[in-house]
Amino acid sequence: MTRRSAPAVPDLVARARQGEAAAVARLITLVEADSPALREVMSALREHTGRAHVVGITGAPGVGKSTSTNALVAAMRADDRRVGVLAVDPSSPFSGGALLGDRVRMGDHALDPEVYIRSMGARGHLGGLARSTPQAVRVLEAAGCDVVVVETVGVGQSEVEVAGLADTTLVLLAPGMGDGIQAAKAGILEIGDVYAVNKADREGADRTRRELRTMLTMAERPEGAWRPPVLQTVASTGEGIDALLAEIDRHAAWLAESGEMVRRRTARARSEVEAIALATMSERWAAAGGGADLDRLAARVADGEADPYAAADELVDGA
Amino acid sequence: MTRRSAPAVPDLVARARQGEAAAVARLITLVEADSPALREVMSALREHTGRAHVVGITGAPGVGKSTSTNALVAAMRADDRRVGVLAVDPSSPFSGGALLGDRVRMGDHALDPEVYIRSMGARGHLGGLARSTPQAVRVLEAAGCDVVVVETVGVGQSEVEVAGLADTTLVLLAPGMGDGIQAAKAGILEIGDVYAVNKADREGADRTRRELRTMLTMAERPEGAWRPPVLQTVASTGEGIDALLAEIDRHAAWLAESGEMVRRRTARARSEVEAIALATMSERWAAAGGGADLDRLAARVADGEADPYAAADELVDGA
Repeated sequence: MTRRSAPAVPDLVARARQGEAAAVARLITLVEADSPALREVMSALREHTGRAHVVGITGAPGVGKSTSTNALVAAMRADDRRVGVLAVDPSSPFSGGALLGDRVRMGDHALDPEVYIRSMGARGHLGGLARSTPQAVRVLEAAGCDVVVVETVGVGQSEVEVAGLADTTLVLLAPGMGDGIQAAKAGILEIGDVYAVNKADREGADRTRRELRTMLTMAERPEGAWRPPVLQTVASTGEGIDALLAEIDRHAAWLAESGEMVRRRTARARSEVEAIALATMSERWAAAGGGADLDRLAARVADGEADPYAAADELVDGA
Repeated sequence: MTRRSAPAVPDLVARARQGEAAAVARLITLVEADSPALREVMSALREHTGRAHVVGITGAPGVGKSTSTNALVAAMRADDRRVGVLAVDPSSPFSGGALLGDRVRMGDHALDPEVYIRSMGARGHLGGLARSTPQAVRVLEAAGCDVVVVETVGVGQSEVEVAGLADTTLVLLAPGMGDGIQAAKAGILEIGDVYAVNKADREGADRTRRELRTMLTMAERPEGAWRPPVLQTVASTGEGIDALLAEIDRHAAWLAESGEMVRRRTARARSEVEAIALATMSERWAAAGGGADLDRLAARVADGEADPYAAADELVDGA
C-alpha cells in the first residue's frame, strides 16, 4: 500500500509565497492544529514576516462586525492591497468547531484571489486565540498580504486578546447598544485605536458617538499619545468606510513615526512567547502522565477531600 | 514602631462563618490577590464548601444583566435565602481595576446583611477569571450563602468560562440584539441551562424567543438530557422573575437527581486544578529568573531574529 506523503514544509512555504491559496490554507491548518510540523513551519516563515499591518476588529454581537470587515476589505482592494482576513469564532466547548463557513461571512470576496479569508475557532483551552492567531497572521504575512484583518466575536476576554494581537484595533459600536456605563463595563475605552458607530442611519447614532467621545476625552493620555477618533459608518451601504480606512492608515503612520510600533510588537511577542512556553510546559507534563493524576485529584477536590491549591501543588511536584 | 498584625486566617474564617461582612471581604481579597496566605485560606475553607447552588448569569452588554441579577436576588431574598453575588468585570489591561462600584450595580441590596456583593476584576493574565472566581465562590459558601450568583460581562471567551464555573448557567438576551446567526456566533446555544429574553416589553421579543427555541430544538441532546427553557422577563419591573427563579430551581433539582451535579463539579475542579498548576509552574519559572529572559527573547522575536516557538523552547529549557 502506498501512502501519498504530505508536502514538505519548505515547498508549502514557497508555494504560499507565490500566493497559492491551497498552500496558505494547509499552512494555517498546520499552525492552528498544533501539529508536529508547527515548529518547522514557524521557523521557515520567520524571515518572511513582520511586514503586514495587522488590524483587529471587535465589538459586541449585532454591531455589524462581518459587514464592516467586508466593506473595509472592499476599500482595501480598491486600493490594490492584498488582504488576509482571520475571523475568530469562539467555538463551543462541546462541538469544538466554528459555526459559520467562510462564504457566509465574506460572500463579496470569497472568489477574489487577492483576498485570503479564514475562519478560526478559538479553542476551549486557555489562551487558544492567543496562541494560534498570531501564527496564522504570520502565514498570511509570508503569503504577501499587506494587511491582515483579525475579526473577533464578542467582548470581554477576547477583546483584551485582540488588542494584544493587532497593530491597530478598531472597536465597533451600534446606536442603542447600551449607555455609557455599558460601554465602560465592556472595557472598550482602553483598547480602541479607532472607533466607529456603525448603523449610523439608525436613531441614537449621534448620541452614542457624542457619549463615546466624551468618555474618551476624559481618559488621561500622555503628551503625544494617539487620540482615538470616533467615526460613523453604515457598513451595509459603504457609507463612511473610506473615511474609516483613512483613519486606520493614519494610525499605522503614527505607529511607525512614534516608535509605538516597535513597542507594541515587542509586547505582543512577549505574550506570545509566554503563552507558548506555558503550553509547552503543560504538554510535557501531560506527556509525563499528569493527565491521569489530574482526574484523580479533580475527583478529590469535587468531593471536598482536597482543596484545589493542595491538589495543584501535588500535581506540579509529582510531575 | 509597632505594626498591627493582620488577623490570622482561622480567625477570619470563623468570623466569615458567622456572617461578618468585613471578614468575608478580607478573605476574598486574600484569594483574589494571590496573596501568600492563599493556600492557607483555601485549606481552611475546604470543609465548609460545596453546599451553595452556583448560578452563572451572562449575556451581551445591554441585555440587562445587572438589572436581572438585582431582580433575581430580590426573589431569592423573598424566599429567605442567603445570597452572594460576584460581578465579574473585564478589567482594562491598562488600569487593572474594575470600573464600577458595587453600589452602582446592586443599589437595592447594598444594605441587606444577608446579601453579599462583590465586584471582581478579571485580570489581564490568562485564566484570571478561571482562577480567582471559584476561590471567591468558596469564601461565600463558607460564609453560609445558599446561592452564589456569578454575573459576567460580555460574551465569547468569558461565557465559556462562566459555563465552567456555574451549576446553572442563565443566558440573557434582549429583543433586536441580533438575528439567529449572531446568537450562533456568540456560542450561546451550548452553554445555557436556562434562557431569558429580557426587555420582553420591547418589540421583537416574541420573535427572539421563537427563534431561540427553534435553534435550541435543533441541537441534538441525548435521552434524559436537560432541555433548556426560554422565558421572557422585564427585569426592571420584576415581570417574569419568579418564573425564572422557579426554572433555575428546577434545574438545580434535575442536577441533583440526574447525577449531573457530580459530573459538573468534577469537571470544574479539573479545570481549576489545571489552571492553578499552570500558574504555579509559571510563577516558579518567573521566580527562577524567567522574566528577564522573556524580555530579551521577545525583543528578538519582534525583530524577526527568532520565531516564537524557538524562543519559547529556549525559555522552557533554560528555566
